[in-house]
Amino acid sequence: MGFSVAIAGATGAVGQEFLRVLEQRAFPVDSLRLMASARSAGKTLSWCGRDYKLEDLATADFTGVDVAFFSAGSGQAAQARRAAAEGALVVDNSSAFRMDPDVPLVVPEVNPEAARAHRGIIANPNCSTILLVVVLAPLARQVGIRRIVASTYQAVSGSGAIALAEFEAQIVAEREGRPLEHSVYPVPIHANVIPFVSGFGEGGITTEEWKMVRETRRILDMPNLAVSATCVRVPVRRAHSEAVNIEFERAVTPDEVRTWLRAADGVQVLDEPATLTFPTPRDAQDGDDVLVGRIRADPGHPQAIDLWLTGDQLRKGAALNAVQIAECVLEVPARTRA
Amino acid sequence: MGFSVAIAGATGAVGQEFLRVLEQRAFPVDSLRLMASARSAGKTLSWCGRDYKLEDLATADFTGVDVAFFSAGSGQAAQARRAAAEGALVVDNSSAFRMDPDVPLVVPEVNPEAARAHRGIIANPNCSTILLVVVLAPLARQVGIRRIVASTYQAVSGSGAIALAEFEAQIVAEREGRPLEHSVYPVPIHANVIPFVSGFGEGGITTEEWKMVRETRRILDMPNLAVSATCVRVPVRRAHSEAVNIEFERAVTPDEVRTWLRAADGVQVLDEPATLTFPTPRDAQDGDDVLVGRIRADPGHPQAIDLWLTGDQLRKGAALNAVQIAECVLEVPARTRA
Repeated sequence: MGFSVAIAGATGAVGQEFLRVLEQRAFPVDSLRLMASARSAGKTLSWCGRDYKLEDLATADFTGVDVAFFSAGSGQAAQARRAAAEGALVVDNSSAFRMDPDVPLVVPEVNPEAARAHRGIIANPNCSTILLVVVLAPLARQVGIRRIVASTYQAVSGSGAIALAEFEAQIVAEREGRPLEHSVYPVPIHANVIPFVSGFGEGGITTEEWKMVRETRRILDMPNLAVSATCVRVPVRRAHSEAVNIEFERAVTPDEVRTWLRAADGVQVLDEPATLTFPTPRDAQDGDDVLVGRIRADPGHPQAIDLWLTGDQLRKGAALNAVQIAECVLEVPARTRA
Repeated sequence: MGFSVAIAGATGAVGQEFLRVLEQRAFPVDSLRLMASARSAGKTLSWCGRDYKLEDLATADFTGVDVAFFSAGSGQAAQARRAAAEGALVVDNSSAFRMDPDVPLVVPEVNPEAARAHRGIIANPNCSTILLVVVLAPLARQVGIRRIVASTYQAVSGSGAIALAEFEAQIVAEREGRPLEHSVYPVPIHANVIPFVSGFGEGGITTEEWKMVRETRRILDMPNLAVSATCVRVPVRRAHSEAVNIEFERAVTPDEVRTWLRAADGVQVLDEPATLTFPTPRDAQDGDDVLVGRIRADPGHPQAIDLWLTGDQLRKGAALNAVQIAECVLEVPARTRA
């Protein structure tokens, strides 16, 4: 009754999160195969009390694999294609296929029907984009959305385990009076914020910002949606946050937005000024839902609403969303974590 | 040839910064008097190699004082009024007088003429607002501005020395595996971001956000300017940053914006994607200028520009701006720091 599951890129931050999510959701795993680079091949990882030997992704045979979760980077797109050709349903977490018209780009709460039309590969969207569209979609179903201006507050673990180690080492170095070393980021992230995520793209917009523009339009199926994004790295370990200004086609009230979001899947509203209730990334860490608060009317625009959201970018922003895609396509009843 | 100068609230973070700014700019101080709460009265502070005994602000006589820099909070507004009645030019850093039509609200690069029309008291604007209008004003002189959407990344020292100590203690506590204690902020700020600055006001908008809306309109003399602000505290020691979307009355290019800002007083453009040049709060700390980068066209709006700014909120956002106001009114030639 279960599936043969493979994880490609099992040693990375997202790969590790796949293992946690599969266990917590009791995903029906009949057999599990873990794959990584040749450098890691032969080492063992344990899952649910059993040891698994890492295979070299470059030579792994995907025959018989039902679903392969790829979190091995855009550079492994050829392996993802090969896995699909060998019969696996591939859910790929890299940016390689996200704008490919033959590959659905899916957030199950938003466009599950797109997942079911797959041709072997389904793309898992950018982390900041997933958190944003989980909140935008239930609003757009009620009243059309014209324009988004979003500023992000992105966690260090979004750059992987090495970035997190760099951050921790900077905290220690500063306490000991040593210079802050950095290699993942162009400047220290400890006690700093960096208005630069990924690399620079067209028009002085970063690739992360372009992903938020283009993937948001594609997932919501709103090709003309106006999106401005400023992506900023902050010294937070885990969970991305976003300040979002949403311009609707007609005036909506904060109470309407709260009502629509309370009824939405994957969203939790934490919004009560009187008790200083609003979500922070420390609240979202290790959780499944996108937390939303600070919902209020924009005093400068009669049709705009401001809000704040935060979500665990390694879970809903990556591994959890990919597993939910598989549950959707394989018709596995979703079981939330125990 | 010099002036009799008083600093009310000399022991606070901004008070200390006043002493540094007066020394660095060689402000012509003939005599200096330092005032604080009754609790601190009698203690001594040193400045430029001399010791000064702290006076109790409540009973200090301002007769003969030429200029009094107040950074003693809104609760001391009565003392500021008394100082002005006793003949001092009062530059007040609290929010008490900022929306008083009889009191000019001044940023010298933006509206110096308002300062000269004072009636004894001049209000120093909110820190985030000062940094923003220093950048907006030179743009608005070229092309009208319709709407601003700003998200802030505000440093812990903006909440005073106690907040900074709370942050440092949290860093140590987490390394030692102890719980993170907090009293200034409702949740820990270390490895977190908090979408809440000051307190809550009308419409679920914080008082800090309302200051950015109302003070920006007043300083720029644009009563109908549409402003949305989301104010967020970040684990940075010093220098506030802001991601700003600016909608103009006509399309402008990023190059035009760079040219206008390069010619502006108090602004430094650090913006070169090819060399990963953009400003972070660590660059702005202890400096006088507002640093601007990431200037780019908003892909979602033909008349909007996105940019990123950062500035030392204890200097240009508080003490430096107040001293510049005094220089402007007293016609002291501005001397930048050595």
